[in-house]
Amino acid sequence: MHNHENGPELLSSKEALHLAKWDESRLEELLSSMHGSELGELLLACRKDSERHTLIEFIPDEMLGEVLLELPEGMQEDLLADYKAGEVEEFVAHLDSDDAADILQAVDKEVADEVIEHLDPAERREIEQLMTHDDETAGGLMQAELFKVRDNWSVEKVLQVLRRFGREIENLNYVYVVDDDDRLVGVMSLHEMLFAEPDVIVSGVAKTDFPRALAGQDQEDVAHIFEKYDVLALPVVDEQGVLVGRITADDVIDVIQEEATEDMYRLAALSDQDDLSEPVGITARRRGVWLAVNLLTAIAASVVIAQFEATIAQVVALAVLMPIVASMGGIAGTQTLTVIVRGIALGRITFANARRTLIKEVSVGMVSGITFAVVIGTIASFWFPDLGLRLGWIIAVAMMINLFAAALAGSLIPLTLQRLNIDPALASGTILTTVTDVVGFFSFLGLATLFLI
Amino acid sequence: MHNHENGPELLSSKEALHLAKWDESRLEELLSSMHGSELGELLLACRKDSERHTLIEFIPDEMLGEVLLELPEGMQEDLLADYKAGEVEEFVAHLDSDDAADILQAVDKEVADEVIEHLDPAERREIEQLMTHDDETAGGLMQAELFKVRDNWSVEKVLQVLRRFGREIENLNYVYVVDDDDRLVGVMSLHEMLFAEPDVIVSGVAKTDFPRALAGQDQEDVAHIFEKYDVLALPVVDEQGVLVGRITADDVIDVIQEEATEDMYRLAALSDQDDLSEPVGITARRRGVWLAVNLLTAIAASVVIAQFEATIAQVVALAVLMPIVASMGGIAGTQTLTVIVRGIALGRITFANARRTLIKEVSVGMVSGITFAVVIGTIASFWFPDLGLRLGWIIAVAMMINLFAAALAGSLIPLTLQRLNIDPALASGTILTTVTDVVGFFSFLGLATLFLI
Repeated sequence: MHNHENGPELLSSKEALHLAKWDESRLEELLSSMHGSELGELLLACRKDSERHTLIEFIPDEMLGEVLLELPEGMQEDLLADYKAGEVEEFVAHLDSDDAADILQAVDKEVADEVIEHLDPAERREIEQLMTHDDETAGGLMQAELFKVRDNWSVEKVLQVLRRFGREIENLNYVYVVDDDDRLVGVMSLHEMLFAEPDVIVSGVAKTDFPRALAGQDQEDVAHIFEKYDVLALPVVDEQGVLVGRITADDVIDVIQEEATEDMYRLAALSDQDDLSEPVGITARRRGVWLAVNLLTAIAASVVIAQFEATIAQVVALAVLMPIVASMGGIAGTQTLTVIVRGIALGRITFANARRTLIKEVSVGMVSGITFAVVIGTIASFWFPDLGLRLGWIIAVAMMINLFAAALAGSLIPLTLQRLNIDPALASGTILTTVTDVVGFFSFLGLATLFLI
Repeated sequence: MHNHENGPELLSSKEALHLAKWDESRLEELLSSMHGSELGELLLACRKDSERHTLIEFIPDEMLGEVLLELPEGMQEDLLADYKAGEVEEFVAHLDSDDAADILQAVDKEVADEVIEHLDPAERREIEQLMTHDDETAGGLMQAELFKVRDNWSVEKVLQVLRRFGREIENLNYVYVVDDDDRLVGVMSLHEMLFAEPDVIVSGVAKTDFPRALAGQDQEDVAHIFEKYDVLALPVVDEQGVLVGRITADDVIDVIQEEATEDMYRLAALSDQDDLSEPVGITARRRGVWLAVNLLTAIAASVVIAQFEATIAQVVALAVLMPIVASMGGIAGTQTLTVIVRGIALGRITFANARRTLIKEVSVGMVSGITFAVVIGTIASFWFPDLGLRLGWIIAVAMMINLFAAALAGSLIPLTLQRLNIDPALASGTILTTVTDVVGFFSFLGLATLFLI
């Protein structure tokens, strides 16, 4: 029995590589007792692809597909690059249709075609069908394995057929009822089925009002349906209402984590490909792209400051204080931006209530603007008493303007991107800080030029 | 049948309030056809608590508990404040034990006590037991309703008992096998149970190697177990291994979204209580706390700049360029910080691999540092040719120092907080930008003072 409570790691990659050299049979034994996701972690922990190749040799075929699916896509493709069709066939045979389709999309096209050719016709149709769907849609998430019955069957017949053909289907919790055109007309849990009278017709007892997903629907929408209806599996239909697959809650858990990571990364100017286990050079290149974008926007802010060189030369206190105005704008804007990006992701901000959200955020910006204007105005007046109250007034007004601009930009950037069907998290942090830096420096130094000297 | 594909909102809060005045029976009819989470959205969309009170009157008792649980905790408590014990009893009766316990924790203590007193002894024990667990632990998430059987029963007896007593249990997918001390010794899916021979003893066919959660375990750990083992429900045991409840995947989906929101909010200097539907004044106050913290750190950075007033007065170009060094440090540090906070949340960064992650991040910081040092050094030399190559060198070295500091701070802050058992996302963004601002300004202006004038 495994110890699942913060137990020590079962086997480190170092120990595994040592065993690969000195005690192959012990390594095989240890690996075969591990869970797929533990093996995935073990491979991730390796320093080099060559080490991964060494260990993969010892993973039993029936686990290999599952393990590969735990790895980031880039690593998956690298590791699969040397596999021949025959080898891929061996381990794909152990996978559910959705996982098999994912693996076949990661190998070379010729290899995939060869593997598919050798499948039996029914499986082949299923997998080809699954491979047509975009990765990030309901169709890309679903599996073809499910238990469906005709609407005119009796409960007794359903249970008979289930006993005959249902054994292989993992997590079989719902029975799907279809009409003679294969359109989904009802859903019934296995549990309810056990309590139904044997001679009743299923269409009479199955629920007809149930959530479902369309094959083309975005995976984020699918997650919302799960959240909303608290179901453990969701049937997927095509445009004609024909049942084409089902998605189980465990797959959706992965999607939700993925989407949350993506949004967090994008807000932080990170590529969503950024990965802990990739080499330093690749990570540095990925992040460098965003740092370069930020360098350009930082230079834009410096160009604004450069317009006021003469003013700064006369009153150096301005150089001391100007980062405060910019920094407060950046933080306040990020607060608004994050609330809105997350609200969109969770489906709580829609086109219908966007205007109200915008008004609220701008109001919050004005309240904070007035509050911190008073605070910073007072501080500045005491800090540089020679410049009198005038400096206090100038920084107060600049702060108010910048916190207002921050709220406006923090709301409008993601809402506009969303309207244009671009991920609202993408690049919005960078655009935002450009706005708050430029507005912050320009308003503070501009007002100082007009009224201080 | 509902249309679940981006359908229009069923009923706006405005329409509902209108009907509440003019056509009560129509409103009752419409509300009773809506799903709990749709009713929750309707209440959230109201502008004022008084509007919510009006609408709540029309929600049927059997839905009310579910609807209240969809609302943010603060709103829940406000709405429940006027309820009397008798009324709470009415709708709590329709809830699962975990939801009932959550509601009873949100009402006044006296009301809760009175409601609990009126429950039948078995339910009372269950709910009192559930209420002892911390909200954010496995015990706080679990429900007491589950189907357990003795290890010496036959499959036939299990199915008989199930047919007799199992009807009420929602999402019954697993049968839990316990020994005569009520310790969990096996798990079997309902589906597997259907395929087992009727006269076999369950302990012989149930899985004995299965994931479980400890009642005191953090909800984030629970989410990891679900992700790792792809199960749809998880049994919860106490320290003696006694089965005390189960957690279903749909509850975990909510936890995962909640935890991701919390981390995103904390990284953005937001309170995790921040809510779209709360009034402007409250939001402004919550955010103001963090803005005030940021003001203090921005002033700290300004104090650093103030030490170099004489230098800036001589070379105003320094004031123009200094925000670039600080800004690049802030962005690079945030990239590292986000990767590490997320890696910890997903369980991918553990104590064991923390050192390697730190080394990688610092290496990336050095690579970026050198790259952007060359770029900014070149730009600065061309921008201010009077100051010659010396200014280029100075800003290049400052950039290198700051990107190194950013990587170090971006890694060490969350890893240290994690070590101290503090949420690694909490306040780390603010500490980080303090470091990158102070180091950025100090190194650039300090080097300029030493070598430029």
